[in-house]
Amino acid sequence: MNYQLFYAPGAASMAVHWMLIELGVPFEAFLVDIDRGEKRDPQYLKLNPSGRVPTLVIDGVAYGETVALLMLLAERHPGSGLVPDVGSPQRAEWLQLAIYIANTLMPAMRDWLYAAKDGNPEGADAVKALAEKRISSVWDDFEARLLKKGDYLLGDHFGMVDMLAVMLMRWSRNMPCPAIDRPTLRQYVDRIAQRASYIELNTREGLSGWPA
Amino acid sequence: MNYQLFYAPGAASMAVHWMLIELGVPFEAFLVDIDRGEKRDPQYLKLNPSGRVPTLVIDGVAYGETVALLMLLAERHPGSGLVPDVGSPQRAEWLQLAIYIANTLMPAMRDWLYAAKDGNPEGADAVKALAEKRISSVWDDFEARLLKKGDYLLGDHFGMVDMLAVMLMRWSRNMPCPAIDRPTLRQYVDRIAQRASYIELNTREGLSGWPA
Repeated sequence: MNYQLFYAPGAASMAVHWMLIELGVPFEAFLVDIDRGEKRDPQYLKLNPSGRVPTLVIDGVAYGETVALLMLLAERHPGSGLVPDVGSPQRAEWLQLAIYIANTLMPAMRDWLYAAKDGNPEGADAVKALAEKRISSVWDDFEARLLKKGDYLLGDHFGMVDMLAVMLMRWSRNMPCPAIDRPTLRQYVDRIAQRASYIELNTREGLSGWPA
Repeated sequence: MNYQLFYAPGAASMAVHWMLIELGVPFEAFLVDIDRGEKRDPQYLKLNPSGRVPTLVIDGVAYGETVALLMLLAERHPGSGLVPDVGSPQRAEWLQLAIYIANTLMPAMRDWLYAAKDGNPEGADAVKALAEKRISSVWDDFEARLLKKGDYLLGDHFGMVDMLAVMLMRWSRNMPCPAIDRPTLRQYVDRIAQRASYIELNTREGLSGWPA
């Protein structure tokens, strides 16, 4: 197999970058410099017509959508332990949680960050208010889940949904509802931030300062 | 295996109901009467704490999230032909499309239908305006895809993403942007509406009149 990841530091590509590091598979990483407009570069748009990161090129074919890429990497590398095995009792719970994050938290994050760009700037405050309510509601769910399940979102084992969740919690750091203002989520992130893969990821993407 | 589906006619449960019929597996279906408030019934909330449909009870354990359930059913019944096989060239494209529908079209539909309920009613018009723009943009994508791919969203074969897409296109029938106002999407829906499973689904859910 042959992987090329197109990423921007701290963006939605972060979870895919992290998973590639956790899997320990060879890949090449290419920085898409958003500040220099490279998401709209014609060469990049050929790979990713929506002009977003991540793009993961697999054996020469380009794909997008963070959660799809995480699911795909999991099934291309079975036995990684990062998702419950097909047919295992936890499989349905994992799928349900991954889709919940994809269709509840991720769109609310987009609304909060891009309301004025995606829609009419005059309506952005209303869109952001609803987004903030929804993001807080997901933090409520995550807190309740961790109190019930243990150290990670699916229980005892760190995995794909934790990488996705921590990336999105990081995005909330400058929002009115930072995830790690909540002690349960703070402990969860602090625990995961000690992993070698998280430290390596931050080094490779040039990130620091979260969680402080 | 043992499946119990909790559904409401025409709601997000429709694609799961349809997939169960397409798979030809035995299942029991239980109507959740939304008009009578049964989504908030304490017995139902035990199965589905968010008070939404669908709930699919699998071997005694209840799960939600439409797209997760469709993915789960696909992997519990391999060889159905309703999704590309694991390891096949189309697998990544299928995952990407399913996640795109889950995190772009479905949240926009929720915004359009529930803006005033989920958020501040005063902000609902702004939320709905952005939702309508996003829904239309997905119809653009679907049109372009069908023109390129053929009869179905992934090409020559009807499958899971078509059931999901047609359900969501049906929801747009009373919105300002009905999918089937577009000739390419109209032909697509008309083609699928002739399937025995779609006719059976509508009979079982007591639905008629779309596509007229």
